[in-house]
Amino acid sequence: MTRRSKRSSRSPDGAERNPESEGGIPASVEGAARPGLRIAPSGRRGSTKARKGSPSAEATLGELRGRLLEISDLSASAAVLAWDQATYMPVGGAEARGRQCSLISRLVHERMTDPGLGRLLDRLMAYGESLPHDSDEARLISVTRRDFERAVKVPATFVERASALGSSSYDAWRRARPNNDFAAMRPYLEKILDLRRDYVEFFAPYQHVLDPLIDEMDEGMTCASVQSLFGELRRELSPIVRSIGDQAPADDSCLHGAFAEGPQLEFGLGVARAFGYDLERGRLDRTPHPFCTKFSAGDVRITTRVYPGEVTQALFSTLHEAGHALYEQGVAPELAGTPLGWGASAGVHESQSRLWENVVGRSLGFWRHFYPKLRAAFPDRLGKVPLKTFHRAINKVERSPIRTDADEVTYNLHIMLRFDLELELIEGRLAAKDLPEAWRRRTCRRPGGHAANPTSASALPTTATAACRTCIGIRAASAARSRAIRSAMC
Amino acid sequence: MTRRSKRSSRSPDGAERNPESEGGIPASVEGAARPGLRIAPSGRRGSTKARKGSPSAEATLGELRGRLLEISDLSASAAVLAWDQATYMPVGGAEARGRQCSLISRLVHERMTDPGLGRLLDRLMAYGESLPHDSDEARLISVTRRDFERAVKVPATFVERASALGSSSYDAWRRARPNNDFAAMRPYLEKILDLRRDYVEFFAPYQHVLDPLIDEMDEGMTCASVQSLFGELRRELSPIVRSIGDQAPADDSCLHGAFAEGPQLEFGLGVARAFGYDLERGRLDRTPHPFCTKFSAGDVRITTRVYPGEVTQALFSTLHEAGHALYEQGVAPELAGTPLGWGASAGVHESQSRLWENVVGRSLGFWRHFYPKLRAAFPDRLGKVPLKTFHRAINKVERSPIRTDADEVTYNLHIMLRFDLELELIEGRLAAKDLPEAWRRRTCRRPGGHAANPTSASALPTTATAACRTCIGIRAASAARSRAIRSAMC
Repeated sequence: MTRRSKRSSRSPDGAERNPESEGGIPASVEGAARPGLRIAPSGRRGSTKARKGSPSAEATLGELRGRLLEISDLSASAAVLAWDQATYMPVGGAEARGRQCSLISRLVHERMTDPGLGRLLDRLMAYGESLPHDSDEARLISVTRRDFERAVKVPATFVERASALGSSSYDAWRRARPNNDFAAMRPYLEKILDLRRDYVEFFAPYQHVLDPLIDEMDEGMTCASVQSLFGELRRELSPIVRSIGDQAPADDSCLHGAFAEGPQLEFGLGVARAFGYDLERGRLDRTPHPFCTKFSAGDVRITTRVYPGEVTQALFSTLHEAGHALYEQGVAPELAGTPLGWGASAGVHESQSRLWENVVGRSLGFWRHFYPKLRAAFPDRLGKVPLKTFHRAINKVERSPIRTDADEVTYNLHIMLRFDLELELIEGRLAAKDLPEAWRRRTCRRPGGHAANPTSASALPTTATAACRTCIGIRAASAARSRAIRSAMC
Repeated sequence: MTRRSKRSSRSPDGAERNPESEGGIPASVEGAARPGLRIAPSGRRGSTKARKGSPSAEATLGELRGRLLEISDLSASAAVLAWDQATYMPVGGAEARGRQCSLISRLVHERMTDPGLGRLLDRLMAYGESLPHDSDEARLISVTRRDFERAVKVPATFVERASALGSSSYDAWRRARPNNDFAAMRPYLEKILDLRRDYVEFFAPYQHVLDPLIDEMDEGMTCASVQSLFGELRRELSPIVRSIGDQAPADDSCLHGAFAEGPQLEFGLGVARAFGYDLERGRLDRTPHPFCTKFSAGDVRITTRVYPGEVTQALFSTLHEAGHALYEQGVAPELAGTPLGWGASAGVHESQSRLWENVVGRSLGFWRHFYPKLRAAFPDRLGKVPLKTFHRAINKVERSPIRTDADEVTYNLHIMLRFDLELELIEGRLAAKDLPEAWRRRTCRRPGGHAANPTSASALPTTATAACRTCIGIRAASAARSRAIRSAMC
């Protein structure tokens, strides 16, 4: 139930997202935007075809909702286990936690593939078709049907295997990260790729091996459409990056130095609250890889990581995750516990997180208001730094090895690079063992690219494996079936 | 899977203890004390009756272990949800969390009452009887049989109802506590008493209504035996308390004043580590009501609460919970995931926690070593306080309204008082509404009792409801069936 996101793509056991949520685009944005307002399906939107649901259809729909709520609650339980693994769990808990997550994944899958659910959906088919296409009820029936049909293609044993691998690879990643130990991660990466290829086969035939994975994250998108989109973006982005590269780099030295971690977290959370993030229904914790997760409409949490020698990374991570959280906190309460009670898609979700992080969070107007507060938190470091200097510094464009810490412009390059690498990995054109070298090579020759920062090399194992965790491609997966894989790749 | 304990008796949803753990006395203490040493049943302890388990019995035992591991993992998942509810969960999460815990409780109960489990146990009966009575295998079979037979007496609907009430009453308690709002708690207390009485009926006939509840916590004990034990204790304790009361009270002013919370927590955790509490397999967090909880052999956590105006409450709570945790961390790894992989009973568990808290933690020898460290943490406050003064202060005997903050001597009075009150409540001789008055009256006339501290009155609602959460009596319950009730009363 954790939202994948720029910074939130990983989750320890993959139990992070509601299995039904992916691609479950709430057709009725209008209805969804009115918490508490429940419009009866009949006659809604003036459809002449709409007819009153027969009592039996209403009862069947009630039964469907009951089943979905149980699935949602079980998924949420797994998400709590995952959040705990990523925030507070002692290392000794990893083995059992993997088993616990795997067990709950299986229970979710059992419920998602229960023939009784299929029969319910069959009974609701005519009713659903009689409703306005974009009514909540019609969408609930059709989205659940789609999720059910996806789920039944995947064997339970696969789900357990995937979840277990997700947990163990997250644990391995957490241990490997401080030492930049790619060798330790490699076997996990290889297993994940194998698992991913096995998974895709359940959805054969397909045009491209990535298509089923992408479709689960952004329904209707394909490998080809992503490539076309990225091609266009690259064409537009290249001259911008090049032109920036031609200029003297911005001076961001004011962002570096000793910044106490507590005040960093406090300031970031203060801004998130000012954005509207409700702490009665959320909280901020620390983690190695920031993410946002949702346990219920009343409990949407964000995480961040803090560097004591730099002041903005934790902040922008927090704002990014707050963007995801605001989106989820804004979902109409009456959709809770159903596949519609979630953000519409990975793409729309990232639009929200990056809106708050970049469009709002790096703007001058924003800092006119917030800079005095940041200065007050760090008077020794920023007291003499003018707003203009600070604002320029936080908008510095510079290649960096860590995607989640990248600036607004090069972040896109990260995504595209990772998409390419993941594509080659899953197609078998690139072996996992060659990933570090491929990463090194590409970061030196991409549009506008100056050679990778020397720290890239040392950061490589993390970033290179992270490359397999982020992109719209491989990381795409519907939670119930393959959440462990996606999470392991996040 | 949370150990109930002096300070740990409550758990938000009652998912705190392994359903199979209660009374699951590891017969083979010797074996259990040798991690990694797995003695085959045959010939063990030199029993002439022992015979090699037939392959089919071994396979059946393997199947039993598989089922028990799944039950244990599900219970652990519920325990994580409960820990989260008691530590970090935002208030908005309470409703869904109650549902989630209730769902998992039902799933545990389904597995504990599965007729397939009963058939397995039938098939293992002869094999179990052929083994030395105190071998791990024989005990595993008999303890599981006992738990199964208890579980099947309780309907699934009851388990769900109990779990839901446990969560909602914990949430109500958390809200009521800061305002001393007994009126807000009263309806919950009444429901809990009703539920408890309903529960006991599943185990009729019984000698006394408390007997089934006590037996689940401390197998073999009864209301009569507890009363007899307490009678004896009271006889011995009264002159001690009276004699202490005749003396000038110890001066404990050195313990009061501004003590920063961070260093308090750090110091307590440092001592726990020195006791042997392994932080690779545990951690310390803050909570309104301290407890210890276990998610697996590799993840045994403790919690405490900190008062910024006093230095020892958080510390002794921490040491107490560390005592529980040390016991659980010391369980032989090969017993993990079975009903034997837990402390032997509530009584033995409290013996461990109070050993570390009082016998060790309030001794002069202990403080000869640790006082310089505590002084170093709080030089302004303790720099000039001699060890002798400090040691006398932490051993001051004084009535206080909060059980978990009571000293070594009056703590016992708390337990006995609460037992009496719970007894009267469950027997119907005392109405929930009259509890505050009964509490007030009794705290003024108990042996050695000076009138209750004026703060007692203001602390009353919490303590009075806590009275229903602590005692060996009402709080006793086996987890799978009635965990919510017990927890709500903890």
